[in-house]
Amino acid sequence: MIQFALVTPPASIKQLRVAALAGGVGGAKLAHGLATLLPPENLSIIVNTGDDFEHLGLKICPDLDTVLYTLAGRSNPTTGWGLTGDTFNVLDALGCFDAPTWFRLGDCDLATHLWRSELLRRGMLLTKVTNMLSHALGVRQPILPMCDMPMPTRILTDQGEMDFQVYFVQHACRPAVRAFHWPQVGNAKPSAEVIAALDTADVVVFCPSNPFVSIDPILMLPGVRERVNSRLSIAVSPILDGVAVKGPAAKMFSEVGIKPSAQAVASHYAGLLKGFILDKVDEAQIAQVRALGMEAAAIPTLMPGLLERTAVAQYVLEFALHLL
Amino acid sequence: MIQFALVTPPASIKQLRVAALAGGVGGAKLAHGLATLLPPENLSIIVNTGDDFEHLGLKICPDLDTVLYTLAGRSNPTTGWGLTGDTFNVLDALGCFDAPTWFRLGDCDLATHLWRSELLRRGMLLTKVTNMLSHALGVRQPILPMCDMPMPTRILTDQGEMDFQVYFVQHACRPAVRAFHWPQVGNAKPSAEVIAALDTADVVVFCPSNPFVSIDPILMLPGVRERVNSRLSIAVSPILDGVAVKGPAAKMFSEVGIKPSAQAVASHYAGLLKGFILDKVDEAQIAQVRALGMEAAAIPTLMPGLLERTAVAQYVLEFALHLL
Repeated sequence: MIQFALVTPPASIKQLRVAALAGGVGGAKLAHGLATLLPPENLSIIVNTGDDFEHLGLKICPDLDTVLYTLAGRSNPTTGWGLTGDTFNVLDALGCFDAPTWFRLGDCDLATHLWRSELLRRGMLLTKVTNMLSHALGVRQPILPMCDMPMPTRILTDQGEMDFQVYFVQHACRPAVRAFHWPQVGNAKPSAEVIAALDTADVVVFCPSNPFVSIDPILMLPGVRERVNSRLSIAVSPILDGVAVKGPAAKMFSEVGIKPSAQAVASHYAGLLKGFILDKVDEAQIAQVRALGMEAAAIPTLMPGLLERTAVAQYVLEFALHLL
Repeated sequence: MIQFALVTPPASIKQLRVAALAGGVGGAKLAHGLATLLPPENLSIIVNTGDDFEHLGLKICPDLDTVLYTLAGRSNPTTGWGLTGDTFNVLDALGCFDAPTWFRLGDCDLATHLWRSELLRRGMLLTKVTNMLSHALGVRQPILPMCDMPMPTRILTDQGEMDFQVYFVQHACRPAVRAFHWPQVGNAKPSAEVIAALDTADVVVFCPSNPFVSIDPILMLPGVRERVNSRLSIAVSPILDGVAVKGPAAKMFSEVGIKPSAQAVASHYAGLLKGFILDKVDEAQIAQVRALGMEAAAIPTLMPGLLERTAVAQYVLEFALHLL
């Protein structure tokens, strides 16, 4: 007689083990919703570090911080970066010295960068540092940098090649993008924590983040794409009604010759996804998305507050349960 | 017929070219008085950098900053360090991370350290960096770091050997001092600007700073002691009535076995000084100081405000003119 080891599928969304791939604001919002619904041990948030850069000797990790501050309930909803209620006394004083002030460092935000930089200088890995910062801010869900080594995103534009933050903040995304480039991808590998999160996940959620500069860098790390491919993967479109909720995603699609749309995002991830969630306004695109070989559903995806974040997260998890 | 090239001595105190040797608070006060009386091109302030240290990745130069902030009229008179009216938002946030907060970094003060550290990282010499910071704060007198390379003062105490700032701030000068130690003195040399300031000075003023840890490190640099010896040198005692106005000078004298007094300070510099100014309360020591081979005078030396600073500076310069 042969015995089968039966793996019981999760009976409720709370039992789902989720690995979320996230960039900045949009990613942080869905992660926030997922964090509200899932027990901390069932959620890992794998965060893009391609935006990381060094500025005034500080190691700054914009996406990690946005996710961290959002989950801590301390992100600034008006700016989309930094801490709510932060002051800018150091930055004002730097301005008196003609020091660069284009990157808006708040005082409390600066403390994060100072302490992270110090811990990294002491030899601690970014994963561990992020864990300590999370702990200090009361965030219990693992926020995992995609890798512990630098893997900067370089943007090739009509005004030359530049670091992501220079393109994004200093040039306010104005230059036309020609291509993306990761000069250090050959040396980068995902952390053991990222690998473990993917290996134990029931579902991988692509948060509504920029496909080119937030999600692709994560997928590009050796071993990640295969692992994502072997799980149930679901994406939430960062583009609705042809525009990005925030950031340059739609502009980038146009500049690389693709009409920006939810369907274009689904197409970008074709072969990798089992499910795709687009906004209610793009319901008409469901058939085209399904034609790409994935399930599709349309819901309201705007997530200004925790109520909407939790609603979208709930739908994502129910959709996953349905597809499992 | 033989012609003599006559060097006309300065006819007024404003024409005196002065090189002042200074540490922190006391040195900054007299430098402030001198800066009020002299045209900027006739004053150079050579500042101890033995207290400099690295903290949270920031290069901090406490004595340079005290002199800079004092001459800029922005020093905090209550604390003796930092900027008046500064806030501590970064430090408070660092405290949430369990980062070290024993060194009280104000927000505007932090901007000085951030920008200095950045300029040094870009390869600029500390002398040039200090010049830029001075310019930004509207200070026209050259504030010269004694050297451009690190020459940290190490304090040997009954609780072990430690960096100066660890002894001074973290341990609040409590450990008993056994000796002073400059492990990097072999590699240190004064900057060209310091040499030029000494070579062109009519008078070298030893400000009322700690002899052991503020003035000695400057004198120890190769070529400085000989140059000071070749000029008219005058010191103002940092000790009055057996105690230091500020800082551990008197305690240090006791701990190395010398009864602290103005006379003990004069004795410490014996052979190097032509004139010595002690406080009116120590007038009785004038004869003993003269016995050390220098002229001596007693005046009120406390300098809480600019009025007293200018009065002491005026006396120092008139004394110099008298001794030239």
